[in-house]
Amino acid sequence: MLDSTSVTPPERSARPERQVHARSVAGAAPKGQQTKAAVVDAALNLASQVGLEGLSIGAVAELTHMSKSGVFAHFGSREELQISVVRAYHRRFELEVFRPTLTQPRGLPRLRALFANWVKRTTAEIDAGCLFISGATEFDDRPGPVRNALVESFRLWQAAIQHAIAQAKKAGHLRVEADEKQIVFEIHGLILALHYEARFLRLPDSIERAATGFETIIARHANSNAAIGPSSTAPSPHSPRRRITTAH
Amino acid sequence: MLDSTSVTPPERSARPERQVHARSVAGAAPKGQQTKAAVVDAALNLASQVGLEGLSIGAVAELTHMSKSGVFAHFGSREELQISVVRAYHRRFELEVFRPTLTQPRGLPRLRALFANWVKRTTAEIDAGCLFISGATEFDDRPGPVRNALVESFRLWQAAIQHAIAQAKKAGHLRVEADEKQIVFEIHGLILALHYEARFLRLPDSIERAATGFETIIARHANSNAAIGPSSTAPSPHSPRRRITTAH
Repeated sequence: MLDSTSVTPPERSARPERQVHARSVAGAAPKGQQTKAAVVDAALNLASQVGLEGLSIGAVAELTHMSKSGVFAHFGSREELQISVVRAYHRRFELEVFRPTLTQPRGLPRLRALFANWVKRTTAEIDAGCLFISGATEFDDRPGPVRNALVESFRLWQAAIQHAIAQAKKAGHLRVEADEKQIVFEIHGLILALHYEARFLRLPDSIERAATGFETIIARHANSNAAIGPSSTAPSPHSPRRRITTAH
Repeated sequence: MLDSTSVTPPERSARPERQVHARSVAGAAPKGQQTKAAVVDAALNLASQVGLEGLSIGAVAELTHMSKSGVFAHFGSREELQISVVRAYHRRFELEVFRPTLTQPRGLPRLRALFANWVKRTTAEIDAGCLFISGATEFDDRPGPVRNALVESFRLWQAAIQHAIAQAKKAGHLRVEADEKQIVFEIHGLILALHYEARFLRLPDSIERAATGFETIIARHANSNAAIGPSSTAPSPHSPRRRITTAH
């Protein structure tokens, strides 16, 4: 499924023959890859504003001061550009939300860190928009490789949280009978409500509500024998790092 | 705020002078209103597929076999068409989700019925899409009257749930210290997770997870002195009516 050090899906190109070809041109690959990475970065920022469906080869060309044919040469299609953006979003998410939690002890401290970072990422995106959420609305009824890439990416993230819950059970922090998938579902709900109510309804207390909801879930499943720190109070939403640190 | 019989916002047109004019043409209003209602219906169905932003006077004209100028005469702008669609969605939501619960006793039975109908509506929309959710993604960063209409509509629905929770406290079903807004937030999260995981991830057990989450919230705040029926088992998602009936 996934190991504890990565939620990155294996890189699979929808156009493997293109990649092979690019690599076979001696010397061209490194520079080409750098340019491609810069274009993907710009496209990711654009997609965060206008959605994946708002992406076009033309708009990205304008943004990067390249010719349309220059951008096209890197991706071959708008769809491949969109998939590259989903993968870039995944890597950014992994780097900012998942990776930093690995310094936390397995179990509740790491699970709390995952949630705190997810909240942080979601609220940092209040101005930009989360591709997992906007992409789901855009592609839920459009089968194809872009939808598949989005689903694959989110499923890996779900699995990472489920894995953290399983570790918390193994560490004796949560009761063995706790339903991991149910907890993942409820945590996901808190994040979606946070995104909706903070971003769309502009309700200022949404971060606190999400944090309170999370601590309630933990308290419900906490093993009373385990010394896991106070779980009746919600973590301060504005200083997740501090909370993560004091949680163990 | 709102009484217990309606969540409908007062009808306010962004172009009141147009309505006044229409009414002043003897005989024209009833037929014109019928036509307008039929056009709004068609536009609502279209918006459920393609989103509010996918709406255009031209597409609606084609759908209703009218001329573009004919559709335009009823709304005056694409924006006014979008607002009419939001209001029509609100009325449909009220009719299908809110109204039927008024036959239930105040308190937990009515709150359970509200949630069951919301789940039912959300899953009925798996193929079509919920305007409250897709609209939030489309308009969260676009200020203006369409966004305002969407926010107003959803806030009224939130207030209706909060009111039902307050009634459940008053009836002694839920403890007086239960935080109504926190419960609304968590219930909203369950619905959003249901929508995301059933519609986008196609996870078949999402309805059951939402129902389990709801009963957990109720159980946490239930007044142990009140005879409110079993709350440890989730209602059958496929027969909310039966569950609502047996809940009191």
